[in-house]
Amino acid sequence: MKKTAVLPNTLTIEGLRELYRNGGTTPTEVVVEIIRRSQEDEEMNIWITPPELSRIEPYLRKLGEVDPGDAPLWGIPFAIKDNIDWTAAPTTAACPAFAYAPSEDAAVVERLIAAGAIPLGKTNLDQFATGLVGSRSPYGETHNSLRPELISGGSSGGSAVAVARGQAAFSLGTDTAGSGRVPAHLNRLVGYKPSMGAWPVKGVVPACESLDCVTVFAWNLEDATAVDRVVRGPHDEDPWSRELPLPVPSALPSRICVPAPGTVEFYGPFAADYEQAWEAALLKLKGLGITVEETDISLYGEAAAVLYEGPWVAERWAGLAEFVESGAGDVFPVTERILRSGADSRHTAAALFKAMHKLQAFKLEARKRLKDAVLVLPTAGGTWTREQVRQDPVATNRDMGKYTNHCNLLDMCAVAVPSGDAADDLPFGITFFAMAEREDLIRGAAGAFADSLLTGGARL
Amino acid sequence: MKKTAVLPNTLTIEGLRELYRNGGTTPTEVVVEIIRRSQEDEEMNIWITPPELSRIEPYLRKLGEVDPGDAPLWGIPFAIKDNIDWTAAPTTAACPAFAYAPSEDAAVVERLIAAGAIPLGKTNLDQFATGLVGSRSPYGETHNSLRPELISGGSSGGSAVAVARGQAAFSLGTDTAGSGRVPAHLNRLVGYKPSMGAWPVKGVVPACESLDCVTVFAWNLEDATAVDRVVRGPHDEDPWSRELPLPVPSALPSRICVPAPGTVEFYGPFAADYEQAWEAALLKLKGLGITVEETDISLYGEAAAVLYEGPWVAERWAGLAEFVESGAGDVFPVTERILRSGADSRHTAAALFKAMHKLQAFKLEARKRLKDAVLVLPTAGGTWTREQVRQDPVATNRDMGKYTNHCNLLDMCAVAVPSGDAADDLPFGITFFAMAEREDLIRGAAGAFADSLLTGGARL
Repeated sequence: MKKTAVLPNTLTIEGLRELYRNGGTTPTEVVVEIIRRSQEDEEMNIWITPPELSRIEPYLRKLGEVDPGDAPLWGIPFAIKDNIDWTAAPTTAACPAFAYAPSEDAAVVERLIAAGAIPLGKTNLDQFATGLVGSRSPYGETHNSLRPELISGGSSGGSAVAVARGQAAFSLGTDTAGSGRVPAHLNRLVGYKPSMGAWPVKGVVPACESLDCVTVFAWNLEDATAVDRVVRGPHDEDPWSRELPLPVPSALPSRICVPAPGTVEFYGPFAADYEQAWEAALLKLKGLGITVEETDISLYGEAAAVLYEGPWVAERWAGLAEFVESGAGDVFPVTERILRSGADSRHTAAALFKAMHKLQAFKLEARKRLKDAVLVLPTAGGTWTREQVRQDPVATNRDMGKYTNHCNLLDMCAVAVPSGDAADDLPFGITFFAMAEREDLIRGAAGAFADSLLTGGARL
Repeated sequence: MKKTAVLPNTLTIEGLRELYRNGGTTPTEVVVEIIRRSQEDEEMNIWITPPELSRIEPYLRKLGEVDPGDAPLWGIPFAIKDNIDWTAAPTTAACPAFAYAPSEDAAVVERLIAAGAIPLGKTNLDQFATGLVGSRSPYGETHNSLRPELISGGSSGGSAVAVARGQAAFSLGTDTAGSGRVPAHLNRLVGYKPSMGAWPVKGVVPACESLDCVTVFAWNLEDATAVDRVVRGPHDEDPWSRELPLPVPSALPSRICVPAPGTVEFYGPFAADYEQAWEAALLKLKGLGITVEETDISLYGEAAAVLYEGPWVAERWAGLAEFVESGAGDVFPVTERILRSGADSRHTAAALFKAMHKLQAFKLEARKRLKDAVLVLPTAGGTWTREQVRQDPVATNRDMGKYTNHCNLLDMCAVAVPSGDAADDLPFGITFFAMAEREDLIRGAAGAFADSLLTGGARL
């Protein structure tokens, strides 16, 4: 029997390809090791449907019939947030009573499988993708991958932690208000959110249907981009999908817009560490050789406030009212409270139209400011212990969205990237935002930033 | 003193250019004649601010300094619907108490003036552009240009009748649910509605802000296109405007979709004449040498019903609630009733989101059906006497929108063109619809249709 290499903790696409090429391991061995790791981490509440060999075997068998040269993600194992349909397991959206057996894979899952990627299991999330903490689930609070007493971030917490703990090479999340970025930041990963409509949402449980995106967690931008190339493109049965080709090659923006000094608020037990980490990130940005421009970020906060503290929560209620009102049960208490607020009598259609008109003006302003430019903000201004979130689930959660909520409302794409640690095992990260269809700019700028971290110096 | 040609009743851009070129007339003489005609037609309630020499003279003076070769619309007189700002007159939206003195020209007016066109005055409309009959105005019911006992159509009735009566070469209308098409049809004109966002709406009183378009009435497609070339393009202060270049050249669609037999409803005193005219139009369409495909049009009716009989009226209320509630007065009774229905308690934000999600699915279906194709419907299924509209203002108005309401909701462009008369002085017309950004298809198909009317035969 041949010897197999010890699988690294960090599973990257290129790393696995190299191992497959040189015979260091096989997809089945990778899956077996992932299953072992997932069992070891069981108390971290990463999975709702954990990886099991019997469920995965059919996909492994099919790989044998495919030439790796014809399948860009051949043998790459991935995790699926449990609000995205996979026919091999129920979709729960972290609500057992809501669970159903999907008859088709979600469009993104179908495309990944067709490209040779191996679906592993379904990951834990803030119920109905409503939350940014990773604690709002009857399947347990997902632990942070580095410090178990801290939150994982959400709503795609399980997906991020699965990658961070070496239990997938990449994972699918969703992102309406930050769910694809906050957990990346808290677990030292890249979280990539394409332009709305660029990836189909067919087969995804709606949160705010008009704003939902599927996203990817990965160790680096290259892996995120490899996934993008496979899943992007309109789908015939997806009314939200649009023809938005990936702009290639990536490009450097003419400007990097950063908040005016003193206008970023930090919170939580590590606020001081976060502030230092942010200052360090700013210094690195200034060393990239791209004009760094200080900007008034109140626009972004106002856009988010008009809508999330206003009528937009009614979109979540529109999607789930029937289920919640049916009394089927299992709705997480804080989630139910939030969803029901969407039925508040002040959320009239006329008020929603007014808010939309305001939002349209904000979009225009954002388009002007970010012409050929990117915006950079800390992905989050702090984090919390799981205990703190339990004590005050609404306020802690709201803070986590301070620098993420505006993104989809303003029709932006974004990528969250690590930016060194704020303290031991306490990752810090920043997000690059650009207007829709300008993934070239966020990829170019974030790539330059990641390079500068590696070389420890500026890239001119 | 040199002799001047008698100005034709039909003022086309090419006709005027020819007269200017050969010295047959001057812009001032044209304006003077238009003023005379407008006075002659005073009882038709075409204008709210009628053309007056003192108001127009500054524009005529400026023309003297401009080389006609540099100004594509040099000396072409146009009328402005009175919900579109022109600094030389108040904007009333047909509500005297609402009137204000605009400090800037609307973007479209500014671009037309810069191109050498001559603004004449402000035309009558259904108050706040809410209506399709042309009768809902405290400035009087606009008469049909051919049979004064009939409605002009609305809401841009004054603008259409001004052109039809030789009092402008073209006119600006607006169109949310058909206001730029129905009056064209009833007055034997072309009514051209570009893709939403293609022409700026800055300086236009909002009806349903997310759906409003500026439109043009003209005698032929070439004139409508000439206006399009001048006014199209995003505007820096218009959040709804988009970069949507005019697709040129025009193109023939691969299919013309027409309603399945027996599914068009005709109404009003001339229903039988209309039905015959529609059959004749179908025959002509079938002679164009383009595949004619029968289609189920219930999709279009459902899209319109979900929204106009649902929460969309709340968008009108969102814009006007403050004014109506202030009790400033002069709100036309039937208009107030309709506007206030937007505040109905069943129009919740959640219901609006649900309707929007349905609409998104309808859009997908329409995009599939109309890929490289156009849809053709009668512009209206009938008309009414002004007296009949007075008797039953809501039901008659609703009928007029049967074949127009779906258009902007589904993000379509459209052009209404004459199609022979249904009876003496009773014009009939059809509308060519395509999905947004496919003005090439509606121009191509409508052009072929217009040619076939002229030659009396088919064009292969």
